[in-house]
Amino acid sequence: MTLPFDIDRLLASLTLEEKAALTSGLDFWQTKPVSRPDDGVEVPSIWVSDGPHGLRKQAQAEAFAESTPATCFPTAAALGSSWDPDLLRRVGEALGRETGAQKVHVLLGPGVNIKRTPLCGRNFEYVSEDPHLAGELGAAIVEGIQAQGVGTSLKHFAANNQETARMTVSSDVDERTLREIYLPAFETVVKRAQPWTVMCAYNKLNGTYASEHHWLLTEVLRDEWGFEGLVVSDWGAVHDRVTALAAGLDLQMPSGGTRPDDEVVAAVRDGRLDEAVLDQAARRVLRLVAQGIEGARSTDEHRVDDAAHHALAREAAAAGTVLLKNDEVDGRPLLPMDPAAGDVLLVGEFARTPRYQGAGSSQVNPTRLDDALGALRAVLGDVPFEPGFTIAGGPEGDDDALLAAAVAAARDAGTVVAFLGLPGPDESEGYDRKHLDLPDSQVALVRAVAAVNPRVVVVLANGSAVTVSAWHDLVPAVVETWLGGQAGGSAIADVLTGAVAPSGRLTETIPHRLVDTPAFGSFPGEAGHSRYGEGVLVGYRWYDTREVDVAYPFGHGLTYTSFDWSDLAVAVEGAGDSARVSVALTVTNVGPRAGAEVVQVYVRDPESTLVRPVRELRAFAKVALEPDESHRVELTLDARALSFWHPALGRWVVEGGEFVVEAASSSRDLRLSATVHVDSEPIVLPLTRWSTIHEWVSHPTGHPILRDAFAAAGAPALDGPELAWAADVPLKVLSDWNGTPLTADDLDALLAAVAATE
Amino acid sequence: MTLPFDIDRLLASLTLEEKAALTSGLDFWQTKPVSRPDDGVEVPSIWVSDGPHGLRKQAQAEAFAESTPATCFPTAAALGSSWDPDLLRRVGEALGRETGAQKVHVLLGPGVNIKRTPLCGRNFEYVSEDPHLAGELGAAIVEGIQAQGVGTSLKHFAANNQETARMTVSSDVDERTLREIYLPAFETVVKRAQPWTVMCAYNKLNGTYASEHHWLLTEVLRDEWGFEGLVVSDWGAVHDRVTALAAGLDLQMPSGGTRPDDEVVAAVRDGRLDEAVLDQAARRVLRLVAQGIEGARSTDEHRVDDAAHHALAREAAAAGTVLLKNDEVDGRPLLPMDPAAGDVLLVGEFARTPRYQGAGSSQVNPTRLDDALGALRAVLGDVPFEPGFTIAGGPEGDDDALLAAAVAAARDAGTVVAFLGLPGPDESEGYDRKHLDLPDSQVALVRAVAAVNPRVVVVLANGSAVTVSAWHDLVPAVVETWLGGQAGGSAIADVLTGAVAPSGRLTETIPHRLVDTPAFGSFPGEAGHSRYGEGVLVGYRWYDTREVDVAYPFGHGLTYTSFDWSDLAVAVEGAGDSARVSVALTVTNVGPRAGAEVVQVYVRDPESTLVRPVRELRAFAKVALEPDESHRVELTLDARALSFWHPALGRWVVEGGEFVVEAASSSRDLRLSATVHVDSEPIVLPLTRWSTIHEWVSHPTGHPILRDAFAAAGAPALDGPELAWAADVPLKVLSDWNGTPLTADDLDALLAAVAATE
Repeated sequence: MTLPFDIDRLLASLTLEEKAALTSGLDFWQTKPVSRPDDGVEVPSIWVSDGPHGLRKQAQAEAFAESTPATCFPTAAALGSSWDPDLLRRVGEALGRETGAQKVHVLLGPGVNIKRTPLCGRNFEYVSEDPHLAGELGAAIVEGIQAQGVGTSLKHFAANNQETARMTVSSDVDERTLREIYLPAFETVVKRAQPWTVMCAYNKLNGTYASEHHWLLTEVLRDEWGFEGLVVSDWGAVHDRVTALAAGLDLQMPSGGTRPDDEVVAAVRDGRLDEAVLDQAARRVLRLVAQGIEGARSTDEHRVDDAAHHALAREAAAAGTVLLKNDEVDGRPLLPMDPAAGDVLLVGEFARTPRYQGAGSSQVNPTRLDDALGALRAVLGDVPFEPGFTIAGGPEGDDDALLAAAVAAARDAGTVVAFLGLPGPDESEGYDRKHLDLPDSQVALVRAVAAVNPRVVVVLANGSAVTVSAWHDLVPAVVETWLGGQAGGSAIADVLTGAVAPSGRLTETIPHRLVDTPAFGSFPGEAGHSRYGEGVLVGYRWYDTREVDVAYPFGHGLTYTSFDWSDLAVAVEGAGDSARVSVALTVTNVGPRAGAEVVQVYVRDPESTLVRPVRELRAFAKVALEPDESHRVELTLDARALSFWHPALGRWVVEGGEFVVEAASSSRDLRLSATVHVDSEPIVLPLTRWSTIHEWVSHPTGHPILRDAFAAAGAPALDGPELAWAADVPLKVLSDWNGTPLTADDLDALLAAVAATE
Repeated sequence: MTLPFDIDRLLASLTLEEKAALTSGLDFWQTKPVSRPDDGVEVPSIWVSDGPHGLRKQAQAEAFAESTPATCFPTAAALGSSWDPDLLRRVGEALGRETGAQKVHVLLGPGVNIKRTPLCGRNFEYVSEDPHLAGELGAAIVEGIQAQGVGTSLKHFAANNQETARMTVSSDVDERTLREIYLPAFETVVKRAQPWTVMCAYNKLNGTYASEHHWLLTEVLRDEWGFEGLVVSDWGAVHDRVTALAAGLDLQMPSGGTRPDDEVVAAVRDGRLDEAVLDQAARRVLRLVAQGIEGARSTDEHRVDDAAHHALAREAAAAGTVLLKNDEVDGRPLLPMDPAAGDVLLVGEFARTPRYQGAGSSQVNPTRLDDALGALRAVLGDVPFEPGFTIAGGPEGDDDALLAAAVAAARDAGTVVAFLGLPGPDESEGYDRKHLDLPDSQVALVRAVAAVNPRVVVVLANGSAVTVSAWHDLVPAVVETWLGGQAGGSAIADVLTGAVAPSGRLTETIPHRLVDTPAFGSFPGEAGHSRYGEGVLVGYRWYDTREVDVAYPFGHGLTYTSFDWSDLAVAVEGAGDSARVSVALTVTNVGPRAGAEVVQVYVRDPESTLVRPVRELRAFAKVALEPDESHRVELTLDARALSFWHPALGRWVVEGGEFVVEAASSSRDLRLSATVHVDSEPIVLPLTRWSTIHEWVSHPTGHPILRDAFAAAGAPALDGPELAWAADVPLKVLSDWNGTPLTADDLDALLAAVAATE
C-alpha cells in the first residue's frame, strides 16, 4: 500500500487484533506498525517526542536525560510573557523544523492548562492564568509547528492544574468554571489550529478519569468544538482501555504490553464494545500515521540552522522578559544601564549557572547554553562577579562568606546586578512547590547589597511567580526573565544594556503572599479530591474582584519608553449572540526610545444575574513603535466576549445591558474606558412545579398568569413586601401545604396556562 | 389508654393507616390524634410552636402576625454574644415556662447553623461562625427549655446557611468540612442535651434533600451520635415521604393532606417500604406525644412572671452587648458616660423605634417593649433627641432635613449617642442580604455628627455583621447590641450609663468589606448548587489563616475594666484518641470596676498532613471579677480538640506532634501560649495497587519491602532526588508501563508481602 493511505480501504483489510493493536503504542515513543506484505498491508510506525519548548527525542526509555541535542527555546512561561502571537508562530516553525529533521512526527505540546496556583510545579510549561491569552498564544505555536508538516499534542486535557497526586486526584470543578476558565484555551486552539492530537490528562475530572470521560473527549471536544484529530493518553493515563475507547480516547501511550489490546479484542467479541468505536479510533491512528508520513516527506529535507534558532531563542527570551520595576536613581531610570554610571558588579550564582528550563519530560538537551556572566562580559568587558550564594544551599557558613564577599564588592560598585532565582529542584513535573519564596540566602543577599548600594538591579529566574515583598521595595529595578531557554543569558544582557527594550507583560499575577492566592486552602486537595473552591475567580479575576492587594498585577510590564493612549472608539453591532463590539484606540510612543506596548482590552459587566469577575481579558495587541510614532489599534470582540456560561440553561448567554470596555496596560492600569449597551433576549428559565415565586415573576407569560391567580384568591401581591419572604418558595411547596389556597391541581392548571402561551 | 403510654402495646394496636397518619401533621401546628374509644385507643395531639428566642404561638395558619404575647428574649446573635452558657440555660428555663404555660409541647428551636456569610438573612437566629461556641451555647439553652418539661427542635439540620433558594439549593460540602464546621454544633447538642426533636433542613446536602438523607438523618445523627428523639421536617421540606421515612424522617410538618399518608400505606402494601421503618417513625411520634403530655402535667401549673422574664431579657441583652471600641476622650474612655461631661444628645430613629428581632417564623409578639430613648430619659432626665434619618428612607429631602437638625443639635452637646442599625426588611427568614452596609443616610449622619463633636458613641442594632469602616475611625466609641429583644432598650441604657458593664464578645468576625468574606464568589450559588468553596476556612478560620485584615476579630469585646492574664499551665495526659490537655491560667481584674473576661482557648497545629485553620476555638470560660479579684480558670481539652477529620480514613485523627495552646481575648489578641507535645499512632493509609511511591515510603512495613525490591532491581533510591518527580506515581501506573522493571505480578507480590506482615 502506498502513501497517502486510502484509510478506509486499509482499515477494512485489518483484523480485529490489528485494529486493537493500533490503538496502543509499540513502546515509549512509537505507534505500532502493521506489516503483512503478502496481503499488501503495511502501516509504518510514527514517532512522537516530548516538548513543548524544544524537542526531547529520547532513544531509549531508560535514558531519560540523554536526548538528542535540540534548541531549548524559552519555556511557555517566558514565551507567553511576550504576548506576541507572531513570535510564538515563528518559534513554532523552528520547533517544527527541528522535530521533522529528527524524524519525529508529533511534538508533544503545547500545554495550555491554566495556572490556578503559582505552586503548581509545572507552571513553567503553561502560558497563563488567563484562558484568552493561553488560547491565542497556544493556537499560534500550534500553527507554527504544524505548518512544518509536524503534528502537535495539545495538553493536558483537562483541569490538570497540579502535580500533587496528578495520576489519582479528581479535579472537582463546576461546569461554569470549566467552561469559562479551564476549557476555553483548549477550545480556541482546537477551533483555530486543529492540532493533530490532543493529550488527555492523568487526573480525574469530577470523579471520572479524563481518559474515560466521554463528555470531555467526545461531547465537548469533538461534537461541540469540531476536533478532527486523535486523542492520545498522557503516558500511563489509561486504566481501562475499553472504557477509554468508548469515551473517545484513540491511542494509549506508552505501550501497556499485550494485555490491554487483548481486553479490547475480548470486549468487541463479547459485545461490550461496539466494533465501530474501535474502528473509529483505529481510523484516527491511521490518519495520524498518514499525516505523519506525509508531513515527513517535506520535513525530511529541512536542514536546521542551529545558529539561527539560537538567535530566535535569544529574541524570544528578550521579548518575554518583564521589567517589573525601574525607578529613577540620580535622576534617571536605573535601566537600561548607564555606561557613564561607573563599574558594574554582577552578583548571584545564577549569572554563571543559568536556570533556563524546568525539570521533567520537557527537559531539553540544548545545542548551546549562554550565561549572563559571559554575555555581559562580552559587552561590558571583564566586569567583576561574586556568586553571593550557592544555589543548592552550601554547608553552614559557606553562604555567609559568599554573601560577605558580595556585599564588600557591592559597596564601591557603580551598579549591582543581582541574579536571583529558584533552585532547579523547586520546579518540576511530578510535584508542586511548597511555598513562593526565594531561598533565605538570596533574600539575605539582596537586602544586604541594597543596604550598601542604591543602584541594584534584581534579575529573577523562576518558572512561576515568586514573592518579592521581602525585598523589592529596597531596590530600584526588578527584571523577571522566567526560564528563558538556552539563550536567556544573552537575552538578559540585551535587555540590561538596552540593546533590546523589554516588552514582556505578566501573564500571571505576582501576589504578595501565598495566603493571598485563590486556591489557598483548597490546593492541593485531600483524599483524592481537589476542590476548585474559588470557582471562576482565578488569577487576576480573584485579586481584582476581591480587591486583594498584589505586588504586580496581571498584564503589568514596563519598557524604556512611554506611551500615550487616546481616542477610544467603541461601537456595537448586532445584538445577543450576534453582537460584535469594535474597539479602536490610538497608541503613541511619547518617550525617547523605540518600544512595544501591549494594549489589553477587558470587559466588565456591571450588573449580572450571576457573580462575574470584575473584569476579563477579551482581546490584546502588541504594538511596536518608534519614538513619536502612532498606531491605531483596532480589535473586535464577539458575543462570546460578553457572555457567561449559564449553568442552568447549559449555554453561553449574553445578558442584555451595559458593558464597560476597558483598554488597559495591566488589569490595574486602566487607560481608557467606554460603556456600551448591548441588547439581548431576556433570560427565561422554563417554569416547572419547582419554580419559585421569583421565577414566575421573572417569566414573561408566567407573571401575569400567576398575578391574576393570586389576585383572584385574595392573596397578597406577588412582588409586594408581604410576600418578600416567600420569593424563593417553589409553588410546589406552597401547594404541599395543606390549607394554603394553592392546590396541586391549581398549580398544574397554572403550568398548563403558561404552556398554552408558548 | 392512660398515660404514660405503653408505646409498644399502643403501636401494636394501630392500623397501618393510623401509623402512616401519625407521621404527618394534623395542621400547621399539631400532630394527628388517633381516637378509637371503643378499642381503648386514644392518642392525643401535641402542639409545636415557633421559636427560638420567644414563643410564637399562632392559633391560625393564616394569621401569621397575630401570635399570643410572649417575652421576646434577645435573638441568638445577641444571646450568643454573652458567651455565657449559664445565662442561656436560664433563658431556656424561662422559654420553657412560657411554652408550657401556653400548652405548647415543643418549642421549635434553637438554631445552631454556622454563620457562613454575614449575608445570610437568618443569621440573627443563629449563634456563631464557630461550631464549638454554637454547640456549647445551643446545648445550654436546650437543657434549660427541656428542664421545664417542654421539648425543643434543634434546627436546621444541616448545612442550611442561606435563605436564597433554600428550598431547592444543594449545599455542596465535602465531608471534612461538614464534620469540622457544619455538624459539630448539632453533635454537641445532641450528645449533651438530647433535644426531643431535630428539624431537618429545607435544602439538599450534596444533591439529596436533607429530608431524604439517610447518611445525615440515620447514620450520623442516630448511629454515630446516639440521637434518641424524633426527626421532624422543616415546614414543607418533605417531597417524597416514603423516601424520607426510609432515610430517617419521622414526622412531616405541616399537614400535607391525605395524599402523602396514602402513599406511605401503598408503599408498605407493595413492599417498597418496610413496615418496620414506619413502625419506628410512628413509635417515635408516640414517644414524643408521651413526652409532651407527660411534660405538660408539670408545666400546666406554671405561672409565668412576665416582669421577671422581662428583667431576664434585660440582663441577657446587656450581657450580649459588645463594646467594640472605647477610646479615651479628654483623658478618659468615653464610656460609661460621664455625668460630668455635659448634656447628652440622642440621635438616630432607632433610639425611639427599636430594632429588637428579625422577621419570619421567629417573630414574637412581645409582652412589652423598651426603647432606648425612654430608658435613657428615665435615668438621665429629658435629654434631647433628634431622629437624624428615617429608617425606611424618607422622601427626597426629608432625611437631609433630619440630618441637618441632628448635626445642629450635636454641635453643642456634651456627648452624642447615635443609634444606627439595619432597617427591618434587610434581615429576614426567606431571603438574604445584598450587602453589608448601613444605609447611606445613617453613614452620612454619623460622619456629619462626628465632624462637629468629638464625643460620639455609636450604638448598632443589626442581626449580623455590618461594615463599619466608612465611619468607625471617626468616633471614639462603638457598641454592638445586635437584636436585643424586648428589653434591649433598657439594657443599652444600663450599659451606656455603667449600671451594667458590657461583657459580650463577638461570635462573628466583623470584616472590612464584603469582598473579604470567605464565601464571596461562591454564595449564594447558581443553578441549584451552593459550592462551599472555602471549605473549613469559615469565619475567623478564614481571616486568620489567610491573614486578611478585619475591622473587629472574632472573640473581641471590651469592658469598663481591664484584666491581667498570668501563670498559664498546660499539661498533657494520655496519647492519641485518649489524650487530654488541661489548661489553667489566672485572670485578675486590674482595673477600677467590676467586669467579666472571656478566656478563649484556641489550639494551633503548626504542622499537619492536611491544611488546617491557623487556630480553632476549643474551650472558653466567662469569669466575672470584682476589682483586684483573681480567678484560676481551669479547662480541659479532649482528643477531639486536637483532631481533624481525616477524609480518606473517615474518622477523627490526632496527628502526633506539637500543638500550641493559645489563651486569648480574641482570635487576634493572644495573651498566653504554650507548646505541648502529644503522642499518637502514625497515620497509616492501607496500601493498594493505587498507592503511590510516597505512600509506600510512608508505610511502616511497605517501605522496607519496596526499598529492597527497588534495590534488587537496580532502580534509584525510593526517596532520593532521582525519583522525586515520581513520588506521586502509583505503582499501578509504573506496572502499566511496559518495559519498566515492575510488572503487575511484581506489584501483587509486593502487596502480598505487606499483607503478610499485618
